[in-house]
Amino acid sequence: MKDAFRTPDAWKDAFQALSEVGVDRRRGGYSRHGFDRAELELRAWFTEEALRRGLAVRTDRNGNLWAWWGEPGPDAVVTGSHLDSVPGGGAFDGPLGVIAALVAVDMLRAKGFAPAKPIAIVVFAEEEGGRFGVPCLGSRLLTGSIDADAARRLTDPDGVTLAEAVTAAGLDPARLGRDDEALAAVGRFVELHVEQGRGLVDLDASVGVASSILAHGRWRFRFSGEGNHAGATPLGDRRDPMLPASALVLATRRVASAVDGARATVGRLVPNPGGTNVISSTVDVWLDARAPDDARTRAVVEEITAAARSAAAGEGCELTVAEESYGDTVHFDTGLRDEVSGVLGGVPALPTGAGHDAGILAAHVPTAMLFVRNPTGVSHAPAEHAELADCVAGVEALAAVLERLAG
Amino acid sequence: MKDAFRTPDAWKDAFQALSEVGVDRRRGGYSRHGFDRAELELRAWFTEEALRRGLAVRTDRNGNLWAWWGEPGPDAVVTGSHLDSVPGGGAFDGPLGVIAALVAVDMLRAKGFAPAKPIAIVVFAEEEGGRFGVPCLGSRLLTGSIDADAARRLTDPDGVTLAEAVTAAGLDPARLGRDDEALAAVGRFVELHVEQGRGLVDLDASVGVASSILAHGRWRFRFSGEGNHAGATPLGDRRDPMLPASALVLATRRVASAVDGARATVGRLVPNPGGTNVISSTVDVWLDARAPDDARTRAVVEEITAAARSAAAGEGCELTVAEESYGDTVHFDTGLRDEVSGVLGGVPALPTGAGHDAGILAAHVPTAMLFVRNPTGVSHAPAEHAELADCVAGVEALAAVLERLAG
Repeated sequence: MKDAFRTPDAWKDAFQALSEVGVDRRRGGYSRHGFDRAELELRAWFTEEALRRGLAVRTDRNGNLWAWWGEPGPDAVVTGSHLDSVPGGGAFDGPLGVIAALVAVDMLRAKGFAPAKPIAIVVFAEEEGGRFGVPCLGSRLLTGSIDADAARRLTDPDGVTLAEAVTAAGLDPARLGRDDEALAAVGRFVELHVEQGRGLVDLDASVGVASSILAHGRWRFRFSGEGNHAGATPLGDRRDPMLPASALVLATRRVASAVDGARATVGRLVPNPGGTNVISSTVDVWLDARAPDDARTRAVVEEITAAARSAAAGEGCELTVAEESYGDTVHFDTGLRDEVSGVLGGVPALPTGAGHDAGILAAHVPTAMLFVRNPTGVSHAPAEHAELADCVAGVEALAAVLERLAG
Repeated sequence: MKDAFRTPDAWKDAFQALSEVGVDRRRGGYSRHGFDRAELELRAWFTEEALRRGLAVRTDRNGNLWAWWGEPGPDAVVTGSHLDSVPGGGAFDGPLGVIAALVAVDMLRAKGFAPAKPIAIVVFAEEEGGRFGVPCLGSRLLTGSIDADAARRLTDPDGVTLAEAVTAAGLDPARLGRDDEALAAVGRFVELHVEQGRGLVDLDASVGVASSILAHGRWRFRFSGEGNHAGATPLGDRRDPMLPASALVLATRRVASAVDGARATVGRLVPNPGGTNVISSTVDVWLDARAPDDARTRAVVEEITAAARSAAAGEGCELTVAEESYGDTVHFDTGLRDEVSGVLGGVPALPTGAGHDAGILAAHVPTAMLFVRNPTGVSHAPAEHAELADCVAGVEALAAVLERLAG
């Protein structure tokens, strides 16, 4: 006789299955990037898990994976998240929402639920932008919020284009881009995610719903100077791009601190050629900037850019600035949010500074997010964590929401 | 009948033979590092060229290559340089001295010179320290100026140890270290090198001799903070090591500018994990500092370190500092320098800020350096250059010096 279904065991088994995929021994944590070996392995795992549950698996034109319970239809209830990570990321950001969706389906089946509306689990491609630089790439392509030609030309750090990477993964790069058919199937979208701050800790709650996402974007600054010998070149003859690049880093904190709710970060900085005894010829710096609204975000970026321009001019360096991605503030659908919160007995609503595929979908369909408590608030790092009891509470919350929305 | 020997043709042929080895398409220029594929290919080229000339080729215990004209003996006249490069380096730094030595041997033979003392051409391993971090590694090992155990444990950016790399190249890592037999063979050492500044341009001379090398060293600073999410982490909760790392970079220029003749550079800076939307957990910064004497060099490093410590403390970050290499000021043997300059009709003597294997050898045997004019002074960069006529003048000068010293 088959054992009774137990949510904690199902959660632990699935979570354990991913624990060795994409381990980054150099950085710590996990490095799983869109269409790389680790992410393809996770896709294969997801496909197998979905098929084992009798779900029909499809890959859409943009490389997002869909597992359908019921016939794909225009009023489907869709949940899911992503399986890629930042470089050296944690185990929960992304996989929590995917695993929770699979286990929630198990729970609903175990209790004999028969959905009136189709339910789908989606795995979005390259949510972190860790390989091609643009976050939420799969959902942006799906919704047409990034130009397909521009996307095809995106390159990873080794110079591989997105077109080449999707070709290697068996997709047709010519078909990348807005997918009205896939989008039309989504009636409502609910993403469950580990919280990336301490909001739920402070509220003493296992689960909450999202109210809004900060406006946010990424800008690449390229400082160009003159590569030369670090020992033989007199200080007065130098045009060293590391100096204005460093001035930019210091400006981020100074500028963002003066704007209420703003955040600005440089986590990626690459001197070229990168030799100890070599004055750099160029330095690339990526700025991540966020604020509660468009005007403040733009103001922060403009002031940081002005500081960078001034520092570059002072060192005789050139500066070019490119916006690599941008998304305005997201306010989630209040009707759906209240409905979801109500199903869960009135769990709290809280804003987030982190971007999500749900933020992209929100411009097209009623969208909600569930957050699971993170005891330290640390995310995008190996220390990211959620307790088993809170993960299980998340699964149960998601199952309850799916039952209500698809019932 | 064999064509008459022509130095410019011999120079061009040899230079051309290296032009495709280790081309770095991402950085520009050449990336050839100790015991990597490109450097091994260059070693094979050198071995073939030496054997073709009837020279006896030996690899010493530390991976330095020796090509002997005559029996190895205690009063040999040794010349040579290195074939590795900095990341994205120029075509002349190193290969100029090796090719010039081969062509100088051709010239001497074409004129029927029979050396009274043995002549050797040496190719030192990993002069730039581009792979294992310590410059002049081959000559430091040979002379015992680096501890063999410490050297064996050096790692490249992929975590490969020097012991593993030399094993892969067919050497016994247990035999690395001071090589009295090889050193005892060297009577005098003369290295020809492209100049890495504009001294000879200002003096309107093709060739000059070296008077001294700045004291110089490398220090690694590791700033440790807390990796976290770039969007979700409030500014007040951050311990971001990019901020003190950037303060260090700005301090290098400020501190070095205040010390006469000092130079300080950061050309290599690596945030970990290096994601755009990730606050770094650690940042590694390599400081290259040089000055006319030990006291000034130490003072520069101490003041930069103090600035780094203060910035790290202000951000709640830890800082560890490690000296990766150090060499005091080198004053070349004045007797040999005057003799060499005299052979060449009184060419000018000039100091340099660049380190060389000749600087390591100078502590053990009478040593001299010849410099070849560099029209822009740029070095350690793809734009590094020397005109054909000046290269030929360098070869002729080296041949004249070898003829005098070995005659």
